[in-house]
Amino acid sequence: MRIAQVAPLAEAVPPKLYGGTERVVSWLTEELVRQGHDVTLFASGDSRTSAKLVPCVPQALRLAGIRDHIASHLVMLNEVRARADQFDVIHFHVDLLQHVLFQNVAHKCLTTLHGRLDLPDYMPVFRTFNEMPLVSISDSQRAPMPPGVNWLATVHHGLPSSVCPFHEEGGEYLAFLGRIAPEKRPDRAIRIATQARIPLKIAAKVDPADQAYYEEVVAPLLDHPLVEFVGEIDENAKCDFLGHARALLFPIDWPEPFGLVMIEAMSAGTPVIAFRNGSVPEVITDGISGFIVESVDEAVAAARQVGTLSRRGVRQAFEHRFTTERMASDYVKAYEALLVRDHANVLPLVAAE
Amino acid sequence: MRIAQVAPLAEAVPPKLYGGTERVVSWLTEELVRQGHDVTLFASGDSRTSAKLVPCVPQALRLAGIRDHIASHLVMLNEVRARADQFDVIHFHVDLLQHVLFQNVAHKCLTTLHGRLDLPDYMPVFRTFNEMPLVSISDSQRAPMPPGVNWLATVHHGLPSSVCPFHEEGGEYLAFLGRIAPEKRPDRAIRIATQARIPLKIAAKVDPADQAYYEEVVAPLLDHPLVEFVGEIDENAKCDFLGHARALLFPIDWPEPFGLVMIEAMSAGTPVIAFRNGSVPEVITDGISGFIVESVDEAVAAARQVGTLSRRGVRQAFEHRFTTERMASDYVKAYEALLVRDHANVLPLVAAE
Repeated sequence: MRIAQVAPLAEAVPPKLYGGTERVVSWLTEELVRQGHDVTLFASGDSRTSAKLVPCVPQALRLAGIRDHIASHLVMLNEVRARADQFDVIHFHVDLLQHVLFQNVAHKCLTTLHGRLDLPDYMPVFRTFNEMPLVSISDSQRAPMPPGVNWLATVHHGLPSSVCPFHEEGGEYLAFLGRIAPEKRPDRAIRIATQARIPLKIAAKVDPADQAYYEEVVAPLLDHPLVEFVGEIDENAKCDFLGHARALLFPIDWPEPFGLVMIEAMSAGTPVIAFRNGSVPEVITDGISGFIVESVDEAVAAARQVGTLSRRGVRQAFEHRFTTERMASDYVKAYEALLVRDHANVLPLVAAE
Repeated sequence: MRIAQVAPLAEAVPPKLYGGTERVVSWLTEELVRQGHDVTLFASGDSRTSAKLVPCVPQALRLAGIRDHIASHLVMLNEVRARADQFDVIHFHVDLLQHVLFQNVAHKCLTTLHGRLDLPDYMPVFRTFNEMPLVSISDSQRAPMPPGVNWLATVHHGLPSSVCPFHEEGGEYLAFLGRIAPEKRPDRAIRIATQARIPLKIAAKVDPADQAYYEEVVAPLLDHPLVEFVGEIDENAKCDFLGHARALLFPIDWPEPFGLVMIEAMSAGTPVIAFRNGSVPEVITDGISGFIVESVDEAVAAARQVGTLSRRGVRQAFEHRFTTERMASDYVKAYEALLVRDHANVLPLVAAE
């Protein structure tokens, strides 16, 4: 199949530092190439891929210091549109602009929505251009969307099996990994660990926007013998950090659309203790790959008994449902469904002649 | 002429509070209607106009709490595009998206660029879609733009003659009006006034982004017997504030693309003491409507001798060059130039048949 992957330009594919979307685009692209598809990647010029790269800006925008990304995305999408005839399927990983620009080739387009959808700002586009095929990254992500949009599939993210290798033995500490942000509830993680009397390691960055929250809410809680603030860690250190943990705490307080860190932990064999919110019930199998809880007390109980779960069973749950092979295969099915729909749309016209 | 005016959706037309662009769009629209043109205004639903209003969102986005404005603008532009056949000319006052969406009707489109252009972020669009006709609001605004873009005209802003009525007698104080921001140099205004030993009144708002600058740089300078900080004032108070001043200080340190406050002062008969930067030499006639200076010392000298300028002469300079009638007439010339170009483009094709 001739497939275009259209990545955001904020980060390189794969990203040099952070960038969940760009990491997923990279994994999907490489797996589709490996499966023999003819893949073209529209992305920043500092991307690395075994697909054909169409560099749309010399360097990823965030590290280049470009703050308004719209112009660069418009130019990229114009380039994609100029080449639309060369592809069977055009797969967008950007949010908005393509819905307007690709109306006349909507039948071969699909967009994976990577972000939260519970903000009113984007809704006018989804309501107006509702013929554009959409893919959600969890079923729960769809909840705030208007009725009548053209859902094609839910495709959960996948992770290459080798990225976070399996650790037969976990460790003693609970792990909190990600950003220090109110919706991630690091304060809740600290309460869970101290009540359960189990050590907690927090590996997290503090964005400038969250500095005040860090200083006012989180920093005062860090002064506890069971709590260690490790700071920001890189991708390699991350898998070690997860692999050596007793469990990952994921005490979120917002409708997380997917939550890559959950499957990274599962890949390492580390179970996840997660609050029931957003994608959590779709990712975690309660009692197998972790525990789904609804209160701090439940989380404390889960943290005490999490050692009874089989780490091999956690890894198997990952291998069964969250590898890149499974993700790519789901997307190929979605592409094929598009082509069939397209064909179905064309047939009556032919028959009417 | 059948004219579409396409306004930003951030503020109503005219704006309830701030919004330089939306005020100009309102003045232009009303004047074009008065001149007998068939004008359609695409704007927020809380706009007021004697043109035909096409409400594109129920309420202006900023006051409605919408932070990402792209989706709403995409839906508006889609609506404009669907009706493009109904207009001889489509006049955009938004920056970016139309360059991509209206390529195939570029011959009847023009865009007034209302903002600063000395940032790299937008350049990919201007370089790529360089056939779209552009209007600058000063010649100096064009400096950072890439070569090869399609400049149609410079049209300086205009102001209805009655908005800031003429004050035969000025007052004793120097006026500073606008935002407290580093590039506006309120600190310089204070140095000029205190060195010249003339009272200074500062009527300005402090945006959250400029709070630190206000506290660290400006506030300590306010404690001076000659300096009065009036705070934020509304549109009506503004013209009184300007009309009762000896002169407006405009000691800017950035390439101001136009600077409406200069013509508001001139309309009231109040001369302007402005630093040579951006549009200043195009707006102020040195020795007639004010003084153009290049240092604090020159500004001090100008503040002392500004009483020798005729306030009636200042008002005449305004009436001659900066009314809405003149602005509308310049735009009608630009529209006509578009139509002629369009015609010229069509002729050779016809001849070739």
